[in-house]
Amino acid sequence: MTNVTRLTIVGGGSWATALVKIFAEGGLQITWLHRNAEAATYIQKHKRNRNYLSFLELDFNNISTTHLAQEAIAASDYILFAVPSAYLAATIAEWKDFDFTGKKIIVSIKGVVGEQHVVPSIYLAQFFNVDADDILVIGGPCHAEEIALQRKTYMTIAGKDKQLTSQLATQLNSPYLRVIDNNDPLGVEYAAILKNIIGIAVGTASGMNYGDNFIAVLVSNALREVKAFLHAVDDVPRDLTQSAYFGDLFVTAYSEFSRNRTFGKMIGRGYNVREAQAHMNMVAEGYYAVKGIYAIAQAKQLHMPIVAAMYRVLYNQASPYVEFQLLEQSLS
Amino acid sequence: MTNVTRLTIVGGGSWATALVKIFAEGGLQITWLHRNAEAATYIQKHKRNRNYLSFLELDFNNISTTHLAQEAIAASDYILFAVPSAYLAATIAEWKDFDFTGKKIIVSIKGVVGEQHVVPSIYLAQFFNVDADDILVIGGPCHAEEIALQRKTYMTIAGKDKQLTSQLATQLNSPYLRVIDNNDPLGVEYAAILKNIIGIAVGTASGMNYGDNFIAVLVSNALREVKAFLHAVDDVPRDLTQSAYFGDLFVTAYSEFSRNRTFGKMIGRGYNVREAQAHMNMVAEGYYAVKGIYAIAQAKQLHMPIVAAMYRVLYNQASPYVEFQLLEQSLS
Repeated sequence: MTNVTRLTIVGGGSWATALVKIFAEGGLQITWLHRNAEAATYIQKHKRNRNYLSFLELDFNNISTTHLAQEAIAASDYILFAVPSAYLAATIAEWKDFDFTGKKIIVSIKGVVGEQHVVPSIYLAQFFNVDADDILVIGGPCHAEEIALQRKTYMTIAGKDKQLTSQLATQLNSPYLRVIDNNDPLGVEYAAILKNIIGIAVGTASGMNYGDNFIAVLVSNALREVKAFLHAVDDVPRDLTQSAYFGDLFVTAYSEFSRNRTFGKMIGRGYNVREAQAHMNMVAEGYYAVKGIYAIAQAKQLHMPIVAAMYRVLYNQASPYVEFQLLEQSLS
Repeated sequence: MTNVTRLTIVGGGSWATALVKIFAEGGLQITWLHRNAEAATYIQKHKRNRNYLSFLELDFNNISTTHLAQEAIAASDYILFAVPSAYLAATIAEWKDFDFTGKKIIVSIKGVVGEQHVVPSIYLAQFFNVDADDILVIGGPCHAEEIALQRKTYMTIAGKDKQLTSQLATQLNSPYLRVIDNNDPLGVEYAAILKNIIGIAVGTASGMNYGDNFIAVLVSNALREVKAFLHAVDDVPRDLTQSAYFGDLFVTAYSEFSRNRTFGKMIGRGYNVREAQAHMNMVAEGYYAVKGIYAIAQAKQLHMPIVAAMYRVLYNQASPYVEFQLLEQSLS
């Protein structure tokens, strides 16, 4: 059993910050990669992320920061990507020639990439010429805010290599964090993407003053869409009641911390996409995801009325009111 | 196609009041049966239920009230029971000789009855010697408060007679109410019972200050217990993402209106069962349900850790803190 020791984390948001905390506490040696020297220096000096979870003081015994990507990656066994999907291509644009031989990639990105709408794991595997089996996916209902506060949280490590996922899960377990290993990385990755769309849909309903009864029906029917979609893209046995699938969806659908829900709420209240994005100062991953997931659903002829309604609202300027009047008729 | 016209509704709580509204608006002739003449007279005079949903004015064109059970039932084609399960046996104790020939029973009771822990539909069928096929079950995520406010709600009518459920569903549909017909009455009835236990469990977790992440995992794992239980008690094909199954569970788990969740919250905060019940002045159905469901789960050797934990907390004075520490380890 090899111990995972050197890990580069790519990303500077709240989720990346929570992951730095988790992996450092798990005893890994972390190199936290930032976009520029100034950000890297600030965090190293103040032991906290100025912009996200700034109340969280990190233990820098196992952490160093840098803005030098090639050196960081060359010195690491694992490279963990935790950037918004919309920025992934730009982030790694200059990295094409980096040597990923023998390295494993961990993906914690909840969106699709590029005009081909591929999931990050496939995008990264192709870009860096890494074998799909060397890619791990992080899933689970983990709001960064609650991890920072050490409230009991479940996280999932998914990958095809059972020994590796099991070992990593054991290593990262802690009193407040229970890590589940899972061998369905593609399902976990897609579930994490889909749940953001559902979060926007629930927020939209809430913004239009639908009540608890309707939202429960919406969420229940959403599970049917998730099930159909995962079955269509990768037909392997999976227990969707595992926290990485439906659990993650529930926290996004019901938590006040959920940025996708908040984004949807503004849409439901009549703001347009640009206004909602400007107001939030955060990317709602589901906004980008809905385009990609809708395209896949169309190509595979899947019946996904909630995804279709959100696509029309967010990309075709359809009225949320009219779309939800129609949607009401197809829920059961 | 026969039109259902004469319906007796047994029950005086908020849910019975909401059902009176729904069925009266559906064009049925309602006889609303109360325990005593005084309550019946008050409601007839004031057109509202003094104790529950008192803000709701009912349209008395199709409604009359009475306390005379035998006459009401003799004059009705349908008898709808909407009393707490704990009071059902006492309510009908004197009704043994009433003639139910040719009548249909509608059950909207979310608990189990008696020391045998039978579901109300089976209890009533045996008690009145009515064929199981003549029993209909009402399910769905329907908080009475939201129905009173005419917020969009989905209700399910379940029964073995497809023509009948379909006809009733059509008749009860309205702009704010979508009625789904379903042919799995036992599954719908058990799902409605189970969800109350889960509501208490979520409330207990919330009372102990578990956060959104943990509660999402708890709810996700609860779906697994519901699935296993329904499969064990009645192995028929059913789509659990239909609103009557998981939808109903979500509203109970997540809605602030949920009395089971509120009851659980007090348990989580350290009140004992008697204090919590006294404080609420309402029966939390899940309290009684957990005993019956736990007994069935034991008899059928089902793995239901959430139900088992709540049983020990509510009936064996186990510490919620200790039970949830143990439960944490079995969730995934």
